[in-house]
Amino acid sequence: MSQNSFKISYPALHAGTNKSLIKFISGTPDLAALFFEGEEAQETRRRFFVTDATVASLECMQSFISKFDDGVCGKDCLLILGSGEPYKTIESVLNIVRAAFDANFTRKDIFIGIGGGVICDLTAFAASIYKRGTSVQFVPTTLLAMVDASIGGKTGCDFENYKNIIGTFFPATKLFYFPEFVQYLPENQYNSGLAEAFKTALLFDKELYDMFKNDADKINSRDSKTLEKIIHKCVKAKGSIVEQDFTEQGIRAYLNLGHTFGHALETVAGLGSITHGAAVAWGIGRAVELAYKKEYCMQAFRDEVFGILKAYKWYTESVPSFVKGGGFSERLITIMRTDKKNLSEKIRLIICKAVTEIQIEEVDEKLIASVLK
Amino acid sequence: MSQNSFKISYPALHAGTNKSLIKFISGTPDLAALFFEGEEAQETRRRFFVTDATVASLECMQSFISKFDDGVCGKDCLLILGSGEPYKTIESVLNIVRAAFDANFTRKDIFIGIGGGVICDLTAFAASIYKRGTSVQFVPTTLLAMVDASIGGKTGCDFENYKNIIGTFFPATKLFYFPEFVQYLPENQYNSGLAEAFKTALLFDKELYDMFKNDADKINSRDSKTLEKIIHKCVKAKGSIVEQDFTEQGIRAYLNLGHTFGHALETVAGLGSITHGAAVAWGIGRAVELAYKKEYCMQAFRDEVFGILKAYKWYTESVPSFVKGGGFSERLITIMRTDKKNLSEKIRLIICKAVTEIQIEEVDEKLIASVLK
Repeated sequence: MSQNSFKISYPALHAGTNKSLIKFISGTPDLAALFFEGEEAQETRRRFFVTDATVASLECMQSFISKFDDGVCGKDCLLILGSGEPYKTIESVLNIVRAAFDANFTRKDIFIGIGGGVICDLTAFAASIYKRGTSVQFVPTTLLAMVDASIGGKTGCDFENYKNIIGTFFPATKLFYFPEFVQYLPENQYNSGLAEAFKTALLFDKELYDMFKNDADKINSRDSKTLEKIIHKCVKAKGSIVEQDFTEQGIRAYLNLGHTFGHALETVAGLGSITHGAAVAWGIGRAVELAYKKEYCMQAFRDEVFGILKAYKWYTESVPSFVKGGGFSERLITIMRTDKKNLSEKIRLIICKAVTEIQIEEVDEKLIASVLK
Repeated sequence: MSQNSFKISYPALHAGTNKSLIKFISGTPDLAALFFEGEEAQETRRRFFVTDATVASLECMQSFISKFDDGVCGKDCLLILGSGEPYKTIESVLNIVRAAFDANFTRKDIFIGIGGGVICDLTAFAASIYKRGTSVQFVPTTLLAMVDASIGGKTGCDFENYKNIIGTFFPATKLFYFPEFVQYLPENQYNSGLAEAFKTALLFDKELYDMFKNDADKINSRDSKTLEKIIHKCVKAKGSIVEQDFTEQGIRAYLNLGHTFGHALETVAGLGSITHGAAVAWGIGRAVELAYKKEYCMQAFRDEVFGILKAYKWYTESVPSFVKGGGFSERLITIMRTDKKNLSEKIRLIICKAVTEIQIEEVDEKLIASVLK
């Protein structure tokens, strides 16, 4: 075989956008005012709004929702999807694509996700593949979406009971934060968002960690000032990490603390059976227990973390009480082997040795099993 | 509403790869030798090969196919999809994802598409969303994939009878070209690839245009030397355009000459009923007719182009003979309004005024209708 060859070079690109602008807006969320009065009302591009039934039924959303007649308001459209993890499917992504296509949206228009992590991830994934990419904005309405999911451009959906197995990197151009949305959350959703905030504290912010340690009453009662501070700190911390390592070649992987255990627990429980945050909080406990067994951390640190987990009513047992059937550790490890972070057949985990002291390493499955029984 | 805001910046990235390496390999295609002997056999990453039933049944492919036992050869896997446009669906993309996931491929591994434009587009789309992005290589086996589809990173699939409505930009890291694959193509597939090569000639290469004008006998009889020259010239021309305008903000859109008409014809005919190239060749004729009606081009140029179209047996009538039912122009225009290139409600078309003299403009629907009846 004789050969000859040449090369074609490609420029580096910004998928979706080169920056995210995050605006904090205090007071009762008023999306009708945000999008149809003032600066944003000047938007000349068409807007395709996506939300879910839960958000659409909030009292504070009615002035916005009522602007739309059969899903249409002037040049803009609104699609309301079903709520929650069971809807985080490729079918939902295609529902967004189909509706935007039927309404003849072009790739110069904007998709705007209004909701929690599921709506943000789905809307951004749809935007990233719609006619090979339009742009996306978010109004995160859950604590979890505010402190974590909406920042940093990870999009995606679940597939056949596996979490976020398909997706893209496609950050939002603008994010509108109304911290008051947090007051509308049911307890388990609020608690789920707190878990990601606590993870951020453990990884990057000793002051935030101390707030979780000392201010459980204020946090559990959703004190507005405390929450605003938590949200600000988490956005700054995650924003900084994402700026340093957008595609998770290095330190961004730390944000997966508790997630390999947590995703596996979510899969075993059935996606949507427990909240993402509850699973992650449990996973953080498992990761700390593992660090303790490896003699990476002191008993005092381990006990302190477990004290905090209990103060927010997160699962701390090696096998959560709701898990049914035997073979728990084997089932979890089988799933953990398929984790996106793994670079080989071995399971890679984020290890927390102390507050803000983190490393990532491949861990022996026997050791993993020992903290799951 | 009091406000405060801040920004998160993102680095520019290379989706998939920063360059494509194209290797030409002459002689009978031997993929077993390519991938399991010599340089490529040293690849340490796992390889997920995707092909279709037609390619898998070629005699020259048997040494490669027989390496796999139940889809597995050592650390590598092979998936064989159905052949042709009817399989260019999101279900096929998800079949690739599922099989790679079940075989526990990581995002550091490689997907390799062996086939025509459909297989290349599907495999690359799957690679671009699998665990938020692995990498992809191609062995294009059709003339169309060699001169057009495999170069430049456009991925995607059809959705509910609309062409390529979802997808990503995600170029292949390596492309292995065996021009001899062209000898195995059925006549309509060969002719389809020629149409894209003729389009490239009209747009960018007077010498190639003259080959189409003067060497119809050699081209129609698949003279190997002539074909190698055509393929080389097309790859160089398209590679150069893609390097200048990867995401189609400007001149890359010229490559859509004939495609707005052509895609619409494919949709009206039913995807897969006529070849992509036959539809594009017909679309080129329509675009030249339109330029003539707008007095952008001379009658001599129009007549010469139509002479060439006829020499390769492409449709030149305003309504192709196989089209059934009335209202052809209305049906086509309705579809053309949804074209990805459009930036408003108006239809944007590529206009060819002479060989290598091209422009893009929004065209009045009445004028479009006038070349469709």
